[in-house]
Amino acid sequence: MSSRPVDPVSNLRTLIQCPSVTPAEGGALDALAAMLAPLKFEIERPVFTEAGTPDIENLYARYGRTGPHLMFAGHTDVVPVGDDAVWSHPPFSADIQDGLMFGRGAVDMKGGIACFVAALARHLEANGTLPGSISFLITGDEEGPALNGSVKLLKWAAERGERWDACILGEPTNPEALGDMIKIGRRGSLSATVVIKGVQGHVAYPHFADNPVRSAVQMATGLLSPSLDEGTPDFQPTNLEITSIDTGNSAVNVIPGKTTLSFNVRFNDLWTPDSLKRELERRLERAAAMRTLHSGERKGSALYEVLWKEQPSQAFLTHDETLIRIVKEAVAAVTGRSPALSTSGGTSDARFIKDYCPVVEFGLVGKTMHMVDENVAIEDLETLTEIYGQMIRNWFASK
Amino acid sequence: MSSRPVDPVSNLRTLIQCPSVTPAEGGALDALAAMLAPLKFEIERPVFTEAGTPDIENLYARYGRTGPHLMFAGHTDVVPVGDDAVWSHPPFSADIQDGLMFGRGAVDMKGGIACFVAALARHLEANGTLPGSISFLITGDEEGPALNGSVKLLKWAAERGERWDACILGEPTNPEALGDMIKIGRRGSLSATVVIKGVQGHVAYPHFADNPVRSAVQMATGLLSPSLDEGTPDFQPTNLEITSIDTGNSAVNVIPGKTTLSFNVRFNDLWTPDSLKRELERRLERAAAMRTLHSGERKGSALYEVLWKEQPSQAFLTHDETLIRIVKEAVAAVTGRSPALSTSGGTSDARFIKDYCPVVEFGLVGKTMHMVDENVAIEDLETLTEIYGQMIRNWFASK
Ligand SMILES: [Zn+2]
Ligand SMILES: [Zn+2]
Repeated sequence: MSSRPVDPVSNLRTLIQCPSVTPAEGGALDALAAMLAPLKFEIERPVFTEAGTPDIENLYARYGRTGPHLMFAGHTDVVPVGDDAVWSHPPFSADIQDGLMFGRGAVDMKGGIACFVAALARHLEANGTLPGSISFLITGDEEGPALNGSVKLLKWAAERGERWDACILGEPTNPEALGDMIKIGRRGSLSATVVIKGVQGHVAYPHFADNPVRSAVQMATGLLSPSLDEGTPDFQPTNLEITSIDTGNSAVNVIPGKTTLSFNVRFNDLWTPDSLKRELERRLERAAAMRTLHSGERKGSALYEVLWKEQPSQAFLTHDETLIRIVKEAVAAVTGRSPALSTSGGTSDARFIKDYCPVVEFGLVGKTMHMVDENVAIEDLETLTEIYGQMIRNWFASK
Repeated sequence: MSSRPVDPVSNLRTLIQCPSVTPAEGGALDALAAMLAPLKFEIERPVFTEAGTPDIENLYARYGRTGPHLMFAGHTDVVPVGDDAVWSHPPFSADIQDGLMFGRGAVDMKGGIACFVAALARHLEANGTLPGSISFLITGDEEGPALNGSVKLLKWAAERGERWDACILGEPTNPEALGDMIKIGRRGSLSATVVIKGVQGHVAYPHFADNPVRSAVQMATGLLSPSLDEGTPDFQPTNLEITSIDTGNSAVNVIPGKTTLSFNVRFNDLWTPDSLKRELERRLERAAAMRTLHSGERKGSALYEVLWKEQPSQAFLTHDETLIRIVKEAVAAVTGRSPALSTSGGTSDARFIKDYCPVVEFGLVGKTMHMVDENVAIEDLETLTEIYGQMIRNWFASK
């Protein structure tokens, strides 16, 4: 195809029709490459592997050879559709009805990619060239374990000498309407399972046993309160959730010998993964030391082991005020709205990109993401294309 | 066999060699009937059934036709042997070594039956007859679900016109040495599972979810404290154990939608099952109403359902001071020791018998019950036979 991909609706239809549920490429990266090729991008398609996980296809495409260098990052993989009979339109059809295009990935985040490609195509059509470089760093492993995606793609590109000055990540950042929210950082995430050991016995003879569930309840209480912090100007308060407690004892007259307790913390920039681990270990230790037996007596400390999940992610905040201003002004100029600068929500690949260059996230409205009947307003696609166009113009103008 | 069963060691060997792991009769009730027949007992062997459970054999045998009427109660079924390769003597061999007889059921409670039969046989040999009646009420379903055992056997006998003035239950009541302890009542037992419902969601968006584990921890804390009571002159303090908490959520980034919490209470005579249920429901309700969300805000009450296990047992205390005195004096006369009058430990079939007549429990030393290498000192068998003989004499003399 040699026609230029200036229409975000057409670009998105093409991408949605590729069934790229992680880890399947589904033709989506091929389709994106076919859009970028006529724009004179140099396109690479590295495949990354890891024992025990499926091989993953990725795409890195660069236009231009000099700085300044702007990266657009994203993913073409999508989450499963669930029961597709429940969808009002088939999830890979890209059907349009009442001004909405339906399909898995419509907003998360094939739509963002479709708009950025259209914005760039229009810019090149209008200006002939760019005063620098733009790269697409697109993975097929964001919704999966993310082991063979952006983290490796960034490292691979950096080892080939690629350097970036800023990144726009096209995740759906707006809760309700286009222009609501820009993400200028993300909270960190840390998970662990605590294995608590007691002494099994008969409920009628609790003094011969040591109930680990009693200790688990005390340890959970100690983890949950007091609050870890009150938040910061840029971040929500750190939040800890006990995600599971599991004893597996079905005998009503038996005190179990073991239980587990799992938790996850979403934390702000008052903490590093290490400082947070230390605080939580201190809380667990204190709660374990308060172990009381059936009689109300205290006796030694509960025996337990904390298994920290690998790869905690750090909280981060983008400090490139020019980048933030340009994104904010582009949103305001096109929508007439003043977007919030937020660090809320889950993690994203920004947690990997931030180690290479400043990153800001802005994309579509996330309301239907990961849901049945995921859809995007056709009008939003045109608006986001205009916003991205402004960002491209103003960012290169600022350099 | 027509020789009289005056030797408790020989009686016990016969009983141990019957592999009567619940629900199997294993020949044990037949063997007991063969011992009682030459003593001129009238023997009945009712079989009770219940949908979904195995049929169970039982034995009711009466000597004499007039009052006063003393019941001896017990069970011939035994708990599983586990890995019999770990036993130093085969679990159904009744091998004797170093003054100990080894075998499953040696103390719980074929030994108690063997001794009572011997005591009675000796009494009849010495006195020719009894000034009243003695009955054996022996079940094969004490260690199992206890649905087709004593509870039905008592009802069956009562419907045929049987009335008892007192009962001695031969469970192993002595913790360390013969003469330690008589049981003059038992605590009640009550169990429930609480199903706590929340709203599933992503850990990064806790305000869209409602974590039931948080509520479970609060409800567990509310159940555990403050103490339910401080005990009474006759009973230990009531004790509640959380026996299991189960969420089954393995996704670290997901707030689960449901969790369960199970508990058992061993309670004293300050409570009935109903008054205790009311107190625990009040505690659960108060804890559920204190549900706090991730932000520390309160919101409504946790949704939960309490599933009470059927057939709670009531705490009870025997008030027949004559019976207690006779048992205590018999123990003291033979052993020279002053036994404690206790209501500690688990439930026993005394919880059913107490509805028909006063019941006191005294038997062998329980230290090895339910364990590998369960065993009884040969010396204890002779001593317990003498104690039971004194009880029989003194009880009829008191009438
Ligand atoms: Zn996404
Ligand atoms: Zn028993």
